[in-house]
Amino acid sequence: MSATEEVLADLAEYVAIPSDSRSATPETMRAAAEWLTGQLAFAGGRVEETAGHPVVRGEWLGAPGAPTVLVYGHYDVQPTGDLTAWTTPPYELTRTTVRGADVVRGRGATDDKGPVLLVLHLARRLLAERGTLPVNLRFLIEGEEEIGSPHLGDYVRAHAAELACDLVVSADGAMWRPTEPSISIASKGLVSLDVVVTGASTDLHSGRYGGTVANPVHALARLLTSLHDEDGTVAVPGFYDGVPALTEERRAELAAIAFDEDAYRDFLGVPELAGEPGFDTLTRLWERPTLEVNGVTGGGKYSVVPHTATAHVTCRLVGEQDPDAVVAAVTAHVLGQRLPGVRVEVHDDGVRVPAYRIEPDHPAVVAGRAALAEVHPGEEVLLAVIAGTLPCTALFEDVLGVKTLFFSFATADEQHHAPDEFFRVARIEAGMRAWAGLWDRLAAS
Amino acid sequence: MSATEEVLADLAEYVAIPSDSRSATPETMRAAAEWLTGQLAFAGGRVEETAGHPVVRGEWLGAPGAPTVLVYGHYDVQPTGDLTAWTTPPYELTRTTVRGADVVRGRGATDDKGPVLLVLHLARRLLAERGTLPVNLRFLIEGEEEIGSPHLGDYVRAHAAELACDLVVSADGAMWRPTEPSISIASKGLVSLDVVVTGASTDLHSGRYGGTVANPVHALARLLTSLHDEDGTVAVPGFYDGVPALTEERRAELAAIAFDEDAYRDFLGVPELAGEPGFDTLTRLWERPTLEVNGVTGGGKYSVVPHTATAHVTCRLVGEQDPDAVVAAVTAHVLGQRLPGVRVEVHDDGVRVPAYRIEPDHPAVVAGRAALAEVHPGEEVLLAVIAGTLPCTALFEDVLGVKTLFFSFATADEQHHAPDEFFRVARIEAGMRAWAGLWDRLAAS
Repeated sequence: MSATEEVLADLAEYVAIPSDSRSATPETMRAAAEWLTGQLAFAGGRVEETAGHPVVRGEWLGAPGAPTVLVYGHYDVQPTGDLTAWTTPPYELTRTTVRGADVVRGRGATDDKGPVLLVLHLARRLLAERGTLPVNLRFLIEGEEEIGSPHLGDYVRAHAAELACDLVVSADGAMWRPTEPSISIASKGLVSLDVVVTGASTDLHSGRYGGTVANPVHALARLLTSLHDEDGTVAVPGFYDGVPALTEERRAELAAIAFDEDAYRDFLGVPELAGEPGFDTLTRLWERPTLEVNGVTGGGKYSVVPHTATAHVTCRLVGEQDPDAVVAAVTAHVLGQRLPGVRVEVHDDGVRVPAYRIEPDHPAVVAGRAALAEVHPGEEVLLAVIAGTLPCTALFEDVLGVKTLFFSFATADEQHHAPDEFFRVARIEAGMRAWAGLWDRLAAS
Repeated sequence: MSATEEVLADLAEYVAIPSDSRSATPETMRAAAEWLTGQLAFAGGRVEETAGHPVVRGEWLGAPGAPTVLVYGHYDVQPTGDLTAWTTPPYELTRTTVRGADVVRGRGATDDKGPVLLVLHLARRLLAERGTLPVNLRFLIEGEEEIGSPHLGDYVRAHAAELACDLVVSADGAMWRPTEPSISIASKGLVSLDVVVTGASTDLHSGRYGGTVANPVHALARLLTSLHDEDGTVAVPGFYDGVPALTEERRAELAAIAFDEDAYRDFLGVPELAGEPGFDTLTRLWERPTLEVNGVTGGGKYSVVPHTATAHVTCRLVGEQDPDAVVAAVTAHVLGQRLPGVRVEVHDDGVRVPAYRIEPDHPAVVAGRAALAEVHPGEEVLLAVIAGTLPCTALFEDVLGVKTLFFSFATADEQHHAPDEFFRVARIEAGMRAWAGLWDRLAAS
């Protein structure tokens, strides 16, 4: 069996464990963690407790004098959402073809079970072939990434000495697009809150009471509309504080990257691209913060005046935007709207992730680019931005004093968090070769 | 056993049949209809087919020369909604106390199972006591009132000769409030539609794609906000066409009705009353049309840019507002908003109910007021408006050529369509006495 087929066989078992950290039982989460320790036997793999879902730990420290790399990833997955939106059952890994590519489909295939598993297989294979590895490895695979890693901070602080390393390399994240190799040198921050509008004490018949009381859905619509100007600019005063001005140099870098807006539009299936004015699409994606309503719910289909309506809002942050300040600004803006007849509350989820950046000339970035260039001869390795959020990066910098290199072999178009999530099969071999090359270069640097 | 206790014993059986016309199986709906035929044995009660849920029919025509009254009601109920919002199981009739009143709680108790059942018990009791009734009675109890009576029109047109009568008396509807007797002389019309906003072909990760595409929830919020001015006036051009100007006489009538806005506010649990400016609360409720968003849904709680968002909208109509014209006006307004990056569709539910009115000096209203006055000596019988919609009224006028008298012993505060629906026990005896008095007066007129 090829290395790729071996990974796929294990990945099918791994994806079959529905480790949805929002709704799975503790037993299911533990089963996923325990399964992973089997893959980590070479490194003393074990499950360790946190105040939430456990983490999986392990270490192979047989290369004295060589650098120590902490491999980070997560074993939890997003909820499946509406099962009818899936072409095949989300927890049955299914090999198929997407846009001409050989892929495997399943919840967690690309985020983050596949990208983690290929690293573990690589380490085992190298150990079997050579009896040693070029660097020391520590492993920290958490079970709460998809819910904002609420207990990872306490765990890492409590185990900082055991996790000491020269660099974190994250198997989470994603290549920007399938057409070329890339390394991400930044990710966006995140804050998250709910806006709840309440009117009467119960849903009211829209005939018998309609017209006499404010409708919370109308009020919520007005609130949500107030969050953006008509042109798409975020209208919350202070929201953009800490967002760096685009330098001419950065504008030039972005302009030099081939980005086909028409193809991107067609890929997403939207009638036209849209967003904050004054910036092209790639610039909006990589350099600009966003405020998105992720969901809204209130009332039902039938003849009521709903008594409550709720929206979930997240902001993705860039540069020096302060998460606390953004939460305070959005909260003040929402509570400052005049809406007669309803009560408005903002429920802060407590999520506070600042934006993250690693400099392009950091030795880890240089090594990673070289390793990727070797796997993809003749192709330029782009320096990209993860427009998503990897909450652990700030934590590792604060507690362990090290930077994090994003080195995932997921690709950003693989339906992360959505129905029909998939992972490109070709990324498995490419990923194993690149990780091996990265370790060699880190050992030599 | 008292007459009231006999009704309650049967009502418990009747409420136990979950005849929710939106979601019950055909078998369950038929079971409710069949159960009702047992109550109508004195009138040859039977189930008759329609293109949807069946109707229950019956007639007692033993009073030649006397007027013929068609008793209308419905055996279907609204969905329960969130079961956790119910204090007791919705399909178990539970005797309890609400605001000091002896009531029975359960889905359909007041809308419309209790108010229908007391009429059937009354007719049986009178027949047992006297061997005859003062008027001829026909019964038409439908199973689709709560879904807009989509098949009642075809049924009534096909059976118009068998349904011939001098007057329809509706056991559906409701007294305006518990503190005095009232007869409703008008009800509002209804149209209903869905607004659907679609962006990308699938939900997108709000980090990896946020800021590059329009968010359908933002667009829907903007659309919904555009439906009203900030002061609560409906902002759809043409919406108010056909709404009668308030005459000084009508203003005076309304001003003469005791209506405690503070008590009403406290009862509904809202921080303040709200609605279209320039009209007091009672006037808004009885005389003004409304446009309400009954529900909204899109995305979820987590980190996505939803690919679609939907709102359900209903308008309650008054006077000469033309249902077709209102649907056209709302549709044109919604589709006329400029919303880059999304597709907007309006799905017309096909509901078209014009407003209804019976003149205060109509002989049936006069007879009904007198009957109520006898049951409530010393109390004034108010002429009220049902701000809800009774779709059958226009149908009976068109096809059978007769007016409908609303003569329900439900009360408008009894949580119609909401959790913890209830029915006041005292209305059972009062209702039976009043229906008997009505029949006597109609026979004498």
